[in-house]
Amino acid sequence: MYYGADYYPEHWPEARWTEDAVLMREAGINVVRMAEFAWTRMEPREGTFDFAWLDRAIDVLAGHGIDVVLGTPTATPPAWLMRSHPECFLVEEDRRPLTFGHRRNYCPTNSTYRDHTRRIVAAMAEHYAGHPAVIGWQIDNEFGDRCYCDSCVRAFHIWLEARYGSLERLNAAWGTDFWSHIYTAWNEIPLPWSGSHTHNPGLALDYRRFMSDAYVDYQRLQIEILRQYDPGKFITHNFMGFGYPKLNYYDLAQDLDMVAWDNYPRFQGLRHASMLALAHDTMRGLKSANFWVMEEQSGPAGQTQLGKTPRPGEIPFWTWQAIAHGADAIVYFRWRTCRFGAEEYWHGILDHDGVPRRRYREVAKVGAQLQRAGDVIVGSRVKARAALLLSYDSRFGFQNQPLNSVFSYERVFESYYRALWNRNIGLDVVSPDADLSDYAIVIAPSVYILPEDVARRLREYVSAGGALVTSCRSGVMDEHNVVVNQTLPGPLSELCGVVVDEYDSLDSVDAVVLRAEGPLGDAQFMSGVWVDVLEPQGAEVIARYGSDYYAGQPAVTAHRFGEGLAVYVGTVPDVAFIDVLCRWLCEEFDVRAPLDVPDGVEVVERNSDAGRLLFLLNGAGGERVVDVGVGGEDLVSGDMVAGHVAIPSLGVVVLRA
Amino acid sequence: MYYGADYYPEHWPEARWTEDAVLMREAGINVVRMAEFAWTRMEPREGTFDFAWLDRAIDVLAGHGIDVVLGTPTATPPAWLMRSHPECFLVEEDRRPLTFGHRRNYCPTNSTYRDHTRRIVAAMAEHYAGHPAVIGWQIDNEFGDRCYCDSCVRAFHIWLEARYGSLERLNAAWGTDFWSHIYTAWNEIPLPWSGSHTHNPGLALDYRRFMSDAYVDYQRLQIEILRQYDPGKFITHNFMGFGYPKLNYYDLAQDLDMVAWDNYPRFQGLRHASMLALAHDTMRGLKSANFWVMEEQSGPAGQTQLGKTPRPGEIPFWTWQAIAHGADAIVYFRWRTCRFGAEEYWHGILDHDGVPRRRYREVAKVGAQLQRAGDVIVGSRVKARAALLLSYDSRFGFQNQPLNSVFSYERVFESYYRALWNRNIGLDVVSPDADLSDYAIVIAPSVYILPEDVARRLREYVSAGGALVTSCRSGVMDEHNVVVNQTLPGPLSELCGVVVDEYDSLDSVDAVVLRAEGPLGDAQFMSGVWVDVLEPQGAEVIARYGSDYYAGQPAVTAHRFGEGLAVYVGTVPDVAFIDVLCRWLCEEFDVRAPLDVPDGVEVVERNSDAGRLLFLLNGAGGERVVDVGVGGEDLVSGDMVAGHVAIPSLGVVVLRA
Amino acid sequence: MYYGADYYPEHWPEARWTEDAVLMREAGINVVRMAEFAWTRMEPREGTFDFAWLDRAIDVLAGHGIDVVLGTPTATPPAWLMRSHPECFLVEEDRRPLTFGHRRNYCPTNSTYRDHTRRIVAAMAEHYAGHPAVIGWQIDNEFGDRCYCDSCVRAFHIWLEARYGSLERLNAAWGTDFWSHIYTAWNEIPLPWSGSHTHNPGLALDYRRFMSDAYVDYQRLQIEILRQYDPGKFITHNFMGFGYPKLNYYDLAQDLDMVAWDNYPRFQGLRHASMLALAHDTMRGLKSANFWVMEEQSGPAGQTQLGKTPRPGEIPFWTWQAIAHGADAIVYFRWRTCRFGAEEYWHGILDHDGVPRRRYREVAKVGAQLQRAGDVIVGSRVKARAALLLSYDSRFGFQNQPLNSVFSYERVFESYYRALWNRNIGLDVVSPDADLSDYAIVIAPSVYILPEDVARRLREYVSAGGALVTSCRSGVMDEHNVVVNQTLPGPLSELCGVVVDEYDSLDSVDAVVLRAEGPLGDAQFMSGVWVDVLEPQGAEVIARYGSDYYAGQPAVTAHRFGEGLAVYVGTVPDVAFIDVLCRWLCEEFDVRAPLDVPDGVEVVERNSDAGRLLFLLNGAGGERVVDVGVGGEDLVSGDMVAGHVAIPSLGVVVLRA
Repeated sequence: MYYGADYYPEHWPEARWTEDAVLMREAGINVVRMAEFAWTRMEPREGTFDFAWLDRAIDVLAGHGIDVVLGTPTATPPAWLMRSHPECFLVEEDRRPLTFGHRRNYCPTNSTYRDHTRRIVAAMAEHYAGHPAVIGWQIDNEFGDRCYCDSCVRAFHIWLEARYGSLERLNAAWGTDFWSHIYTAWNEIPLPWSGSHTHNPGLALDYRRFMSDAYVDYQRLQIEILRQYDPGKFITHNFMGFGYPKLNYYDLAQDLDMVAWDNYPRFQGLRHASMLALAHDTMRGLKSANFWVMEEQSGPAGQTQLGKTPRPGEIPFWTWQAIAHGADAIVYFRWRTCRFGAEEYWHGILDHDGVPRRRYREVAKVGAQLQRAGDVIVGSRVKARAALLLSYDSRFGFQNQPLNSVFSYERVFESYYRALWNRNIGLDVVSPDADLSDYAIVIAPSVYILPEDVARRLREYVSAGGALVTSCRSGVMDEHNVVVNQTLPGPLSELCGVVVDEYDSLDSVDAVVLRAEGPLGDAQFMSGVWVDVLEPQGAEVIARYGSDYYAGQPAVTAHRFGEGLAVYVGTVPDVAFIDVLCRWLCEEFDVRAPLDVPDGVEVVERNSDAGRLLFLLNGAGGERVVDVGVGGEDLVSGDMVAGHVAIPSLGVVVLRA
Repeated sequence: MYYGADYYPEHWPEARWTEDAVLMREAGINVVRMAEFAWTRMEPREGTFDFAWLDRAIDVLAGHGIDVVLGTPTATPPAWLMRSHPECFLVEEDRRPLTFGHRRNYCPTNSTYRDHTRRIVAAMAEHYAGHPAVIGWQIDNEFGDRCYCDSCVRAFHIWLEARYGSLERLNAAWGTDFWSHIYTAWNEIPLPWSGSHTHNPGLALDYRRFMSDAYVDYQRLQIEILRQYDPGKFITHNFMGFGYPKLNYYDLAQDLDMVAWDNYPRFQGLRHASMLALAHDTMRGLKSANFWVMEEQSGPAGQTQLGKTPRPGEIPFWTWQAIAHGADAIVYFRWRTCRFGAEEYWHGILDHDGVPRRRYREVAKVGAQLQRAGDVIVGSRVKARAALLLSYDSRFGFQNQPLNSVFSYERVFESYYRALWNRNIGLDVVSPDADLSDYAIVIAPSVYILPEDVARRLREYVSAGGALVTSCRSGVMDEHNVVVNQTLPGPLSELCGVVVDEYDSLDSVDAVVLRAEGPLGDAQFMSGVWVDVLEPQGAEVIARYGSDYYAGQPAVTAHRFGEGLAVYVGTVPDVAFIDVLCRWLCEEFDVRAPLDVPDGVEVVERNSDAGRLLFLLNGAGGERVVDVGVGGEDLVSGDMVAGHVAIPSLGVVVLRA
Repeated sequence: MYYGADYYPEHWPEARWTEDAVLMREAGINVVRMAEFAWTRMEPREGTFDFAWLDRAIDVLAGHGIDVVLGTPTATPPAWLMRSHPECFLVEEDRRPLTFGHRRNYCPTNSTYRDHTRRIVAAMAEHYAGHPAVIGWQIDNEFGDRCYCDSCVRAFHIWLEARYGSLERLNAAWGTDFWSHIYTAWNEIPLPWSGSHTHNPGLALDYRRFMSDAYVDYQRLQIEILRQYDPGKFITHNFMGFGYPKLNYYDLAQDLDMVAWDNYPRFQGLRHASMLALAHDTMRGLKSANFWVMEEQSGPAGQTQLGKTPRPGEIPFWTWQAIAHGADAIVYFRWRTCRFGAEEYWHGILDHDGVPRRRYREVAKVGAQLQRAGDVIVGSRVKARAALLLSYDSRFGFQNQPLNSVFSYERVFESYYRALWNRNIGLDVVSPDADLSDYAIVIAPSVYILPEDVARRLREYVSAGGALVTSCRSGVMDEHNVVVNQTLPGPLSELCGVVVDEYDSLDSVDAVVLRAEGPLGDAQFMSGVWVDVLEPQGAEVIARYGSDYYAGQPAVTAHRFGEGLAVYVGTVPDVAFIDVLCRWLCEEFDVRAPLDVPDGVEVVERNSDAGRLLFLLNGAGGERVVDVGVGGEDLVSGDMVAGHVAIPSLGVVVLRA
């Protein structure tokens, strides 16, 4: 199993490299990622290349048994390039170009920048083709903000022409009759710059799709060069988890061999363990495959401000949680805290002074554990019987029209995830195009932009026996961000056996009383954000509003459809209600946790031909005792365990059953 | 009486038009406003016109007995125009031009834009001249934001030269000796762009006046064309109530035949009934005449975010309140919620799916009521014996120098309005140039910029027996936003029999104890925001400060002047104090409500030759019983009522006495 | 002793000047500052000068025995200049130029602006050279915001080349290997514009130093002209106290004869007396010499918003406090409140109407007192045995990387100042280059950027018997804003006998329990913002953390080093802890207040050959009784006082012992 760190030999005297390699080996490290920001070091002047320093660094590492993932350095263009070609700078929404001094400040559609990209990537790929220590490539770094430059204007027009064929079709699709925004030439179409207050929702959505496609295309440009020069190596990119909303990550993952991502649980406040789990599951779902963590937090982080220091035990805990959810390699960011540059506050395993301390010892301890357990784990698969459907189109739509001040697609999504995570139900996060037939339960919250073919597959899924939960603001828009010409929930109406009679947009998360009934018992909850007043057309009412002018009206319905069940949640309920709803569905559809454990203990299962691995992660503040029954080997400690096992806070047991 | 909706046939299949017309008629609708954003549909290419679709739509409507108000479409210039002439875009305070994608994004002084305006307005006017179904015109839509473009720079210089004649007079008027801002050529004078932190108050005020005049002038350009081609039709514009502070609405109303306005009680939070009343009274006051509501909210509203849905009964209640305050027609925005475009969240009477539901039924119910009552009401006049004096120049002045973080001219104004509204005292909102002789009480809060001729007329008004209330920050500035060369309140000092010895700017609304005395009794109140420490010179002290270093000093004075009384309120008191003050004045000057009613019931009176109409509007949360005495016919229900009448919450009785 | 007002005769009719002069004399005023914004009045067209009006004004004043300080008017360039040369406008961080309409809106490096500066300064200096009533010069006004224009880009490159000699040395010093920001030509180096999110800390720091130097250089340009034409007159500039963080005030003071500053205790909220004291002491420390207050608040202040009015007695109290701390002259801003211009809300001694009221009477009362006491006071010196070390480089560093949301270098600095001020310990505020040998105690809070030579001198100081207190985030960065290559506190580690084992950045000021021990007793306090977990290497632990994962770990240490003591405070403690720490140090190092007084009474000592002056300032809300022992003459009242003296709130006694 690969276990490693992001390493920047160019930041340190060459004399230190061997000491670093020795310390790495002692911590169990066998891989480093390198070079992903070192363009100018590799190409000091246009067309003049210098890989000698990097060759020597790789030699030192390889000499200590450490493999290398190389990054293409296109996230940080050289000063000589950007000074000569300022048109390569990314232009922000307010039409102002970025300036030199940061990273990810280039336009992905600019042809000059793409030419320079081809040259440096080809030079690297040619130089390292077949190098035995170089096991794979990372492309660029954490794609990417949206650009609003002239090159993007032209590229957008070409993209639109390819999509719509004619202006007549574009005008019809977007509804440009509104406010006389009818286009009579392609070059009349603006980007959704900030100087226009609001934009046509069709244009706004298509621009977001176009810009996502622009990065996919820019990535493909690099992939093709790497595959040509250095075939057989894996190619990846470091994604940014569930939270990053500007790219369609399913599209970006398509061309890659493998997904990797960057996990910073304590960068801006401590993120709840369920949110970390959601991020891992989302990343695993991009290609329905295991992944790497390419940057795992190993110290306090920040650029101009610094976040809290990881508490004792957190780094091992985060590492094991990542593995539980499908990580096949962990690479820490970064080996040693840099003494200079914009990230001199971003700490790694070692501090600025290079002295190993607590964080190094924690990393080394996990390294020793993985030397025992790693090979058993690698390649085993997480299998889930429940899934959440993640729609980037819907995120893009909500970015243009946030609905109200308290609505958040991400928070709604998280609340359903968390309810099932609390019950230790294994979950996949899947795209709207995914095959759903293996899932007993699918939750599709607020699928705001819902093309008819997705609706059709949801109907087929339920018809064949699946359980679907969907919620308010699903089925509102067609693929052009135009409100459907049917009564809501539009293409889901027949499936859910319900129509929306009227709705109410609320500025509070707990504005309305919600009363469960029927199969959910008769408890009382709160909801808010949005109210659909429902009119059942075949569905059973399982909750009603208990306040405001819609008191007594249906709020949540369940509809037997074919062999399955479709639940429509017409509001944004509190966590307690979602918990009750999920408990009922899990019972009805026989979806259960791998093991019964006390509150605060996360259980995740990985499976392979070699058997079943049960990850028990105690995220509670104190010790928890878990009954593991007949038990088996704990891969973490190497001990055999059975019956009642005490796990300390932040402790982990990996049971090989 | 006209009752209608804003209708956009170009958003819907022609096949639907007839169904819409039928549904309209069934709801009592007899007028629609159309075409005000349809420039490109009417002129798809420069100089090529297409009115056929609009002709057909008008025919369908006329065929169902529905008249039409046509809007000139200049708020939404075509893409082909703005792409060819980007210099037409309005430039914001930070010197950045707006972009395509919204509306009201043009510069009103740009000569190219004015040429295009002339062409489309003339084409429309010529085509529809004399059309029997077209009863009037609306110009543009909700004028307008301030522009800071090069065209406006030149136009401002011309405007200044016309106003001042010479730079010597301008320099003297503005006091450009301060900070060496002396101008030696007209083209040295900047606009008050944002890159200058603060600006000379004289320049800042004149720029605001200039930009208001620019819209008045741009409107006049259109009016002249319409009058030339289609004489005899009314011409209006849709104003934005009391709250809109960027244009001098008295000036903008001058050239029009009639004022119309757009009333959205639940667009951004529910506005208090008194604020709606103030808006109606302000609009009525612009021309001292009845008005139309051209856009009355008929569904939840918003562009990127959506506000709350009007509660059951609110739409009828708002409609009747508008009529009570002088509306002679109600037009709802909009007939049907658009499925696309920047306002796809802005709901109309029908939802996106075109299905009539609760809101349609409420509109239809009022339609039926108005078919009975409308013709009796139309043309009757609201008569008030009290007035508030509204100074746009003062608003402009406070926009440049907001005084402190809690001061708001609008809130001060509203607090006096509300105190009288609470007592059901009919009110006019009048300009500083208005004839005041018919009023028993005039309240002129914080007339910050007070030219000597206005001061003179206030003196004459009081001298002849009127009661005047004015307040701190009145009489501070001359017409150039220069502090007067007298002791404050400057030109009001003799009238009020008081001078300001010193003042204190406070950052809280309830910083100081205020103790009434003399005719106001001896209760204790709070005030804040501003303290004038007064020195009476003939006036009687009727309240003193009760805290801080000015404890015991005079705060409010009353001065018998000629036959009348002038009250000077040296601070911003709480509502309770203003209520006590107004009660005393109403008693002294014999101003009373048309009927004694329980709290929460609004009473407004309209009169005509045919008699007296008493509008009783129950805005309270529950039923209220009103003693209507001998009573008469209730025009809403058609019943005869007398004695104690129970009115439910949101219920309305219109008593024809 | 000079006592005066800032006077603008150009704002008033010439007929009023004599009345002003008479009123001034009656108030004891004998000096005015004039002309510092009157460029266009003095040079109405390029090269045409008009000093006649200023000559006449000086004559009127001189005729009443009032001397004049003249200001060069370069803070307010004429409209004719900026219209012809828009490239002279200062450009803001977002790359947008300022516009005409304010002041301090020019670029100090622009060669055109420097040419115009030379001409007007030379013309003034030549005209007034040797004028008997003109006693000195003030240069410009309140330097200066940072500029980001093209001229500054070029000037920055020249500055960098002079500093580093070669790009190799610059790249090495800044660590441009990070993110591939290696520069291969000087003109590739950007300014730290806002479009780059974060910048290389070395670049960011050097830019701030460069821009500070740019103003120093621009000031020197003027000084040289004045010295050439009008030798023998003092030259000063009006600084902005402790709070202004954008210029290195030690550098700016270097070339001047004297420091003056502008004191506005009630401009934006009332500043605590200790903060005013800190500002005075900081200004006195710039040249280790007495200073002038060139603008002392004399009325409510503000530009677009207005602050509170000085309470009765505050103006005299602020005046005496300034004198106590080393002011040798007080000049009030401003004589009369201007009726126009951007500061028409900024009040002076007289109101807009020119009528003398309370504030005039208070100024006149102090004027009378100073006629008795002034000459005894002038030239006497404040002597302190404790000092705070103020590092502008560290402020610049924290501006680039604020550490976290609650950290403030200024607040940390103030907390130590206030603890000693509370005990009436006289304090100097000194630069990192100062000679420390006369001080018993030196406090150097968060000396973030700490060149080795400063560290060496701190070691020498302690070694020779001094007491040093330093705190977390000291010794972190070398002079290039690069983290030191040693374990923290880097070059202070040996001196403090401690290393930092790990640290924690906190988002709250009271996140952690702090337990004193040993010489500090055993009380419990709170701290926050930052935690250094310390590992003593010779030092004694005098406080430990009492919570979080570092509970029980060392937080504050004391280390005997040579003859002295070095205290390292690893966190940001509450005021109570700092108070206990300071009390202990004062006892240990025999530093004491000049007199024991009740809480709320400030005591400051000035000394001269003529003896000792004890200023007793009662800033408490009520009367305080002070035991002055044998006593002496009270210079304020002229009375002899002894034993227990009652001082009313805001009362002042100056005891000549």
